[in-house]
Amino acid sequence: MLTIFGNPLSTCTRKVLMTLAENETPYELSVIDFTKGEHKGEAHVARQPFGRIPALKDDDFEMFESRAMSRYLNEKFSGKLVPADARGRAEMEKWISIETSEFSGHAMKFVYQYIFQRAQEPAVLEAATKGLETTLDVMDARLAKSAYLAGDAFTIADICYMPYIGYAMATPAKDLFAKRPHVMAWWNKISERPTWKKVAG
Amino acid sequence: MLTIFGNPLSTCTRKVLMTLAENETPYELSVIDFTKGEHKGEAHVARQPFGRIPALKDDDFEMFESRAMSRYLNEKFSGKLVPADARGRAEMEKWISIETSEFSGHAMKFVYQYIFQRAQEPAVLEAATKGLETTLDVMDARLAKSAYLAGDAFTIADICYMPYIGYAMATPAKDLFAKRPHVMAWWNKISERPTWKKVAG
Repeated sequence: MLTIFGNPLSTCTRKVLMTLAENETPYELSVIDFTKGEHKGEAHVARQPFGRIPALKDDDFEMFESRAMSRYLNEKFSGKLVPADARGRAEMEKWISIETSEFSGHAMKFVYQYIFQRAQEPAVLEAATKGLETTLDVMDARLAKSAYLAGDAFTIADICYMPYIGYAMATPAKDLFAKRPHVMAWWNKISERPTWKKVAG
Repeated sequence: MLTIFGNPLSTCTRKVLMTLAENETPYELSVIDFTKGEHKGEAHVARQPFGRIPALKDDDFEMFESRAMSRYLNEKFSGKLVPADARGRAEMEKWISIETSEFSGHAMKFVYQYIFQRAQEPAVLEAATKGLETTLDVMDARLAKSAYLAGDAFTIADICYMPYIGYAMATPAKDLFAKRPHVMAWWNKISERPTWKKVAG
């Protein structure tokens, strides 16, 4: 039995749920209610010592960190969300690293400010805007030449961006995306996947 | 021909050079002098659009992002720095994610303050201390039961921490490490590898 400890509203949980949806893998979702501080409670910290979500239990194997969980689950259930060739895998890993280091931190400033009602300093939002513009330009150049971030196929790299973009599109950051036609075409395509509608619906 | 564009003093370059040293792979190092701003110059930004180091060129294939580069190079030249089983790979990926999200950001605050002479606010150093203590506790518990982070063998996960620890040990953060005996035993062991002496020497 596979159990995911997380929350359907959490960006990191959504990466894992999207990976499972694409694999059509059954699982049980054990909801951690972060509005009640359950992620910092003893039971959850025993499985995720940093007090974050998600985590998983797969029979006797436990782990956490959403990007690592997505790689593990995809490998176990199909492998189809990872390119078959070394250069394709290199591209996938490069784009996952870009997401982690150059994208989600910036996007989340908008999500905090406009969705989670955690006010950000104007200078923070300004820096996030600048950072997001740089990254979106790099993504737009890539997506002008390639259907998905890692190449011709939808991979875990695309999944890693989706939860952040899903929320960011409901903030003024939407205007930054709208100026990059290849990013927008890619987003419109991947967000139409029935799996994503299920995860983010 | 394999060319690494980076700098021997850069933490991210050192991850890649350590991966290559472990694989005994020959390469050419094209030094990017960040003290002269070469990482933001036109030639380098053409290969690394965020203006960071390192990047690589392997015949006609170019890429960047140090952790992705390490995975790619190890896979191409031996595969030996990645566990052979799915759970081992899951552990490795988990620990690489922990390094990225919970370790190097904190460690670098000390490195900026005490080595690179970029003064940090006291509150920033205090938060870094607290964050580092949490992560070191999690690492110490893991290393009490396991020779290396991902299991019985030295992997890319261990490599990812080494450049940060190498510098942090020359700052007051050393005291935080010294209180965790299993972390210290692991560090003393891995930093004795001839490959590391070559990379960080």
